[in-house]
Amino acid sequence: MNAPGPPPASLVGDVDAAHRYAAVRVATEALAQPLSAEDCCVQSMPDASPAKWHLAHTTWFFETFILEAHEQGFRPFDPAYRVLFNSYYQGVGRQHPRPQRGLLTRPPLATVLAYRADVDARMRRLLERGAPPAGLGALLELGLQHEQQHQELLVTDIKHLLWCNPLWPAYRDAPAPPPPGRAGAAQAGWRRFDGGLVEIGHAGEGFAFDNELPRHAVYLRPYELATRLVTNADYLAFMADGGYRDPAHWLAEGWDWCCAQQIAHPLYWRRDESGWSEFTLAGGRPLAPLQPVAHLSYYEADAYARWAGARLPTEAEWEAAAARAAGVDQGHFADSGALHPRPAQPAQGGALRQMFGDVWEWTRSSYAPYPGFSPAPGAVGEYNGKFMVNQYVLRGGSCATPAGHARASYRNFFPTGARWQFTGLRLARDS
Amino acid sequence: MNAPGPPPASLVGDVDAAHRYAAVRVATEALAQPLSAEDCCVQSMPDASPAKWHLAHTTWFFETFILEAHEQGFRPFDPAYRVLFNSYYQGVGRQHPRPQRGLLTRPPLATVLAYRADVDARMRRLLERGAPPAGLGALLELGLQHEQQHQELLVTDIKHLLWCNPLWPAYRDAPAPPPPGRAGAAQAGWRRFDGGLVEIGHAGEGFAFDNELPRHAVYLRPYELATRLVTNADYLAFMADGGYRDPAHWLAEGWDWCCAQQIAHPLYWRRDESGWSEFTLAGGRPLAPLQPVAHLSYYEADAYARWAGARLPTEAEWEAAAARAAGVDQGHFADSGALHPRPAQPAQGGALRQMFGDVWEWTRSSYAPYPGFSPAPGAVGEYNGKFMVNQYVLRGGSCATPAGHARASYRNFFPTGARWQFTGLRLARDS
Amino acid sequence: MNAPGPPPASLVGDVDAAHRYAAVRVATEALAQPLSAEDCCVQSMPDASPAKWHLAHTTWFFETFILEAHEQGFRPFDPAYRVLFNSYYQGVGRQHPRPQRGLLTRPPLATVLAYRADVDARMRRLLERGAPPAGLGALLELGLQHEQQHQELLVTDIKHLLWCNPLWPAYRDAPAPPPPGRAGAAQAGWRRFDGGLVEIGHAGEGFAFDNELPRHAVYLRPYELATRLVTNADYLAFMADGGYRDPAHWLAEGWDWCCAQQIAHPLYWRRDESGWSEFTLAGGRPLAPLQPVAHLSYYEADAYARWAGARLPTEAEWEAAAARAAGVDQGHFADSGALHPRPAQPAQGGALRQMFGDVWEWTRSSYAPYPGFSPAPGAVGEYNGKFMVNQYVLRGGSCATPAGHARASYRNFFPTGARWQFTGLRLARDS
Amino acid sequence: MNAPGPPPASLVGDVDAAHRYAAVRVATEALAQPLSAEDCCVQSMPDASPAKWHLAHTTWFFETFILEAHEQGFRPFDPAYRVLFNSYYQGVGRQHPRPQRGLLTRPPLATVLAYRADVDARMRRLLERGAPPAGLGALLELGLQHEQQHQELLVTDIKHLLWCNPLWPAYRDAPAPPPPGRAGAAQAGWRRFDGGLVEIGHAGEGFAFDNELPRHAVYLRPYELATRLVTNADYLAFMADGGYRDPAHWLAEGWDWCCAQQIAHPLYWRRDESGWSEFTLAGGRPLAPLQPVAHLSYYEADAYARWAGARLPTEAEWEAAAARAAGVDQGHFADSGALHPRPAQPAQGGALRQMFGDVWEWTRSSYAPYPGFSPAPGAVGEYNGKFMVNQYVLRGGSCATPAGHARASYRNFFPTGARWQFTGLRLARDS
Repeated sequence: MNAPGPPPASLVGDVDAAHRYAAVRVATEALAQPLSAEDCCVQSMPDASPAKWHLAHTTWFFETFILEAHEQGFRPFDPAYRVLFNSYYQGVGRQHPRPQRGLLTRPPLATVLAYRADVDARMRRLLERGAPPAGLGALLELGLQHEQQHQELLVTDIKHLLWCNPLWPAYRDAPAPPPPGRAGAAQAGWRRFDGGLVEIGHAGEGFAFDNELPRHAVYLRPYELATRLVTNADYLAFMADGGYRDPAHWLAEGWDWCCAQQIAHPLYWRRDESGWSEFTLAGGRPLAPLQPVAHLSYYEADAYARWAGARLPTEAEWEAAAARAAGVDQGHFADSGALHPRPAQPAQGGALRQMFGDVWEWTRSSYAPYPGFSPAPGAVGEYNGKFMVNQYVLRGGSCATPAGHARASYRNFFPTGARWQFTGLRLARDS
Repeated sequence: MNAPGPPPASLVGDVDAAHRYAAVRVATEALAQPLSAEDCCVQSMPDASPAKWHLAHTTWFFETFILEAHEQGFRPFDPAYRVLFNSYYQGVGRQHPRPQRGLLTRPPLATVLAYRADVDARMRRLLERGAPPAGLGALLELGLQHEQQHQELLVTDIKHLLWCNPLWPAYRDAPAPPPPGRAGAAQAGWRRFDGGLVEIGHAGEGFAFDNELPRHAVYLRPYELATRLVTNADYLAFMADGGYRDPAHWLAEGWDWCCAQQIAHPLYWRRDESGWSEFTLAGGRPLAPLQPVAHLSYYEADAYARWAGARLPTEAEWEAAAARAAGVDQGHFADSGALHPRPAQPAQGGALRQMFGDVWEWTRSSYAPYPGFSPAPGAVGEYNGKFMVNQYVLRGGSCATPAGHARASYRNFFPTGARWQFTGLRLARDS
Repeated sequence: MNAPGPPPASLVGDVDAAHRYAAVRVATEALAQPLSAEDCCVQSMPDASPAKWHLAHTTWFFETFILEAHEQGFRPFDPAYRVLFNSYYQGVGRQHPRPQRGLLTRPPLATVLAYRADVDARMRRLLERGAPPAGLGALLELGLQHEQQHQELLVTDIKHLLWCNPLWPAYRDAPAPPPPGRAGAAQAGWRRFDGGLVEIGHAGEGFAFDNELPRHAVYLRPYELATRLVTNADYLAFMADGGYRDPAHWLAEGWDWCCAQQIAHPLYWRRDESGWSEFTLAGGRPLAPLQPVAHLSYYEADAYARWAGARLPTEAEWEAAAARAAGVDQGHFADSGALHPRPAQPAQGGALRQMFGDVWEWTRSSYAPYPGFSPAPGAVGEYNGKFMVNQYVLRGGSCATPAGHARASYRNFFPTGARWQFTGLRLARDS
Repeated sequence: MNAPGPPPASLVGDVDAAHRYAAVRVATEALAQPLSAEDCCVQSMPDASPAKWHLAHTTWFFETFILEAHEQGFRPFDPAYRVLFNSYYQGVGRQHPRPQRGLLTRPPLATVLAYRADVDARMRRLLERGAPPAGLGALLELGLQHEQQHQELLVTDIKHLLWCNPLWPAYRDAPAPPPPGRAGAAQAGWRRFDGGLVEIGHAGEGFAFDNELPRHAVYLRPYELATRLVTNADYLAFMADGGYRDPAHWLAEGWDWCCAQQIAHPLYWRRDESGWSEFTLAGGRPLAPLQPVAHLSYYEADAYARWAGARLPTEAEWEAAAARAAGVDQGHFADSGALHPRPAQPAQGGALRQMFGDVWEWTRSSYAPYPGFSPAPGAVGEYNGKFMVNQYVLRGGSCATPAGHARASYRNFFPTGARWQFTGLRLARDS
């Protein structure tokens, strides 16, 4: 994780491109390794994709956007894949319908792995050639960042699939959580920021998606952020106070959503005679009070904040705080192996705990283009811009985000009802 | 229309409160006058309400929020109305379900009119008493502004209902449109604004809804606004260029919306062997090329702008331009009698034509609380705040807005798929 | 009610055709008389039609099928009505969509009544001419029988609409029910029938719909029918025994229907602290235990019968019993004015009480063509035949059926989930 | 195929029970053999089940209904399977929701095969013991017949899944179809039956499902049956004549179904520049004109028959004809290996070709209990009776039916919109 330090040398250079390519690609396959071919094939809901599809689509990205343009004598591994594994790039042609990705029992997993191996070999040859063609470096980095995004989705999609199984099977065993600190979890405090004219958006040399650009000025009023994430214990207090039964806490649309879907607790929670438990990638576990609460919709995060006499931060407030060098610390990313959020360390001196990792933090900012935004030309210009409506921005990364992938300017986004990502919140308030 | 001049003396004073109350109330009934009891009863879709319901609900607002608090010996006209005509105020109790408003053939229209007369008499007595109680003035003004909003909705809802009838019956005859000017309609030009730190939001003494507050600073890049609205002729060029068939112009969600609903032209348009016509409140009419295009969804407005190499303005850009004293002129409001947008006069010297009236202008700004926003205490606090999600802001008022109701800081808002309001657009671009 | 006696002289003769025509037409208007224009316009669900539509459609039937063929110099009252008020006759052309019948606030009720008057005058002239053309008699009788069917639908559709109103307004006051007999309601007994080869279907000279033809032989095993209808008290016992909670009583599809729609009592019932009440056309009333239970779906009738250790009769069993001259008595039809089922008189000597009137009796027979059935040529051939799938037959007429309209061979039919007709049941069992 | 000859010795006797059990069980696994674990796991629609689920559920049937009652020291293979693999037996307890059968990636296929082996071993021990307990024989036969039904469903469900894949992969290669006879396919003729009082329903010693009982008398008018099935060429003539565009041919509900789902040809057909092809279990193939048309809904079969001036037979007409010893021949069953219908041999002397096998023949008979029907006591009584509503009877078996499984009295049934079975038709008409 680069923030708050200097960005990684993530732009592909001649020397380490092949190495970095191989590292990212291997990491994806490692995530699929605990899964059977059956696990990899099934789609549990239209929003989620099968693991096999993630394995193939990320490969399609390199084959379509890099090999097709730069490989001499390019021939596709299988011409049918151009449609089968195109996600949403209208500029590339038709797409297999998203809700039917799980019906593709053919090609089998073994063939998809062979597809990966074939494209990897061809990519290696391309990257190990002398001078790579102009423009390849940026596309390569985009492809790797894209693959890292799908690594996270592969994990959250599998979590949803396994949860649908009444047996609550584990994806894999998790390392034992670290023992809680002497003083228990961090007490929540507030840290104040002056506001004024700040700049947000990506700056400097490292990689950024186009939606982080251009860097621009935003005027902020003074505000405060909570020094840690909202925990399960915090959230249980909201529930105990009738939080899901009183429309006064809710956006009107959120209340309708609650009633229509009969929502009364976060996704993956279950209560039986022994109390609350939650489904994790290591199977069912008793609910841990000090863990950050996860798998909340925007509506729930917003309602909790209103109940707590606070509000969600804007993305500019969040980024202005996160970009400061001092007092912003890291949480847990996917490399911790837990694939589950962990309690914060006690805060010291107003440090902002867990600004990065553990859970994505809902902001109150609708996902919109930054002033002066323009997407890239060609089909890769569809990467971000066309989704900038009716979604809300999340910041900071999660326990399923690859380490080094997020940064202070990173913008994630989901519709207000989405709950299957590791989504939580940090409170904000006017100062 | 007050902007850009001084705001009207809309806050209720001791002297003219009863007079102003009567004027607004009579105006609502005048709008219902061309309608039969049948017309007033039926609901054409869940988003629209019957005219009878508008007549009753606006009355309910005064009875519930003013008479119940301030009338001595208050007794409701009919206790059942507390639920029947409550729109969405959870703080007041239960509500008759919105999609079933059209099933209320009882109370009949005549009884609803008697309800209006009864509440009006009681309000008159209250207002003509000596010193009105503290707080009544603000609530009264809110009630009158609320009623004006429902005047516009009554018109747009009736338009939708009559359009559903294959006979395309007229609501009432409209005055003949004024003859086009010598030089035809205004040519679209661009007017430049410097940007920088500007203030938006309501200032001064006049009435404003809570969502226009507090006034606050926003940092803008230099930008340009088109000097007139997009016209039917402009929009036909988009259609002729395959605008509805090329996903490259559309937000992904907008494209899905187009395909799922088989949208290929604005609402209320129809093509037959004699060309395009549109349904108006005066019945079907040949499409007038120089009229501002209306009844567009956010998706369509956004797609048109992208096709045109431009974009929608943000609400801050729009307001900063509209709030200037010079060169911002008026279009047509409901008092023109046309209840239909009219062509712009030719622009002179970079004036912004039709910033107010004719059609609401979609902005790219998601409807969100201003920094420091806090809703009013009590049930009236539900007026605006709880709708601040997944809607987009429109500015400027329309041909169905009562004159004097809109202003530069006024924020209207609708979901992205809504088309039955008089919704159009003005282009913007970076400078 | 003609059964079991000789059929009425319902085929139109030269002499009384105009008289009979007028009587049926006036009866329809009398049913609409208690209703306002608003009541007549609204459609409460896709299955129901507005009263105004019934008034117009029955008129359309005469105009389209008789006047258009037989009137010299025929000119339609309004050419648009050919589409607006066509129900489902593809042979006549397009139809206004059924779910949108309630959106037709124009033509207003007064115009529809003028339409009726105009067609009535033209029909009178036609009927009072000398020799009516060949074929007119059969079409006229069909039109009158058709209008009587819509009289019943007008009543049941209005009942549904008024029930949707939380005020539970009355359609009109009903006459006080007759005092219960000394011995309370009839005790249910069983009457045995030998079975063997019986004939069912219409025979003789009177009118019958094509679906009652041809008369044909059916082989029956010995069976028994209950001597009266199932009552509210009977049904409450089923409910008290957990009838709605035990899937063992239900068809699989019925159980799914119950669960999906959360059905736990007949339509129009409501329970509050004072016990069960039901909505009637005279408003809300305490549930009367001895009244026949009404407003059951096929699923509920079937489940009740299985719970009671019995079954529904087949239509052949029912008709063979009903067609016998002796011991089959009448219940109440619409001319009783009650428009609500009434308790049976105590049975004597095995008489079958209420075989006609009060409530339609679900049979276990799917609605199918009789052996040798052939629909009439032309558009009127669409009257019955094209609905012979996925519906079940009901027999006997109800309290909303015009007196004289039903007969032993009469076949009514509805889908298994329909509940807004006066639908109940009589038990049967093998003997 | 036993009909019209004597029934097979299908009731389990002491001697060959274990042998017959093993043969049926092995046949199921042979059908799954060409499939990968991925193929076996996915569910393509709620009506279809994964092959793995068929493998497990048929095993569950033996474990639950036989081992649990008769095995000493019974312990379930896995207690969770009682819910996971219960199809619809409310008497056994809860069921995993049908539309979510495809989400069960665990247990994996290998474990399900181990489950089969375990239950098979335990069954063998039970059957090879001395005298089997009373009642076991009937349950064993029911379990084997049940498994044969699922063999057919496994085939049709896999066909649907593979068809959903745009690659149209083959399930397995089929043997080459036999060369057409000298005279081409059979010309359709008619064979006449006298009608009168006939008996239908199962008689004699062989196995029958409870829905085939009791045998009972039915009175039939004289009728005729076509001597062969309707072919693809016949059906193409219907299509070429606008069959899918003229509502006059259709039941009203069928026409609505056509329009809503935009149906214009049988399921699995596709037209491209080279003409019509169809998806088969051996992959895509040019449409063979002389093959019986398959994969029709009831609506389509009924519309075709009306267009052809004929009708569908009743199930009694069909059975009375099929039960005659002479002139009723066999088509192709699953043991032919084709898993696809084949052209009829030319008819000779009025023989009824293909009465058994090739395609199930829609009848116009709603699926209803025979007079005197009573389901078995206990949970197995849920086998048939609770589905007797809103479905129509099909007769004769198909190319996917195990040889020896069907018989003249066999009643299959599906809802009117089902098309993924091998469903076709034979014409009937009054004589």
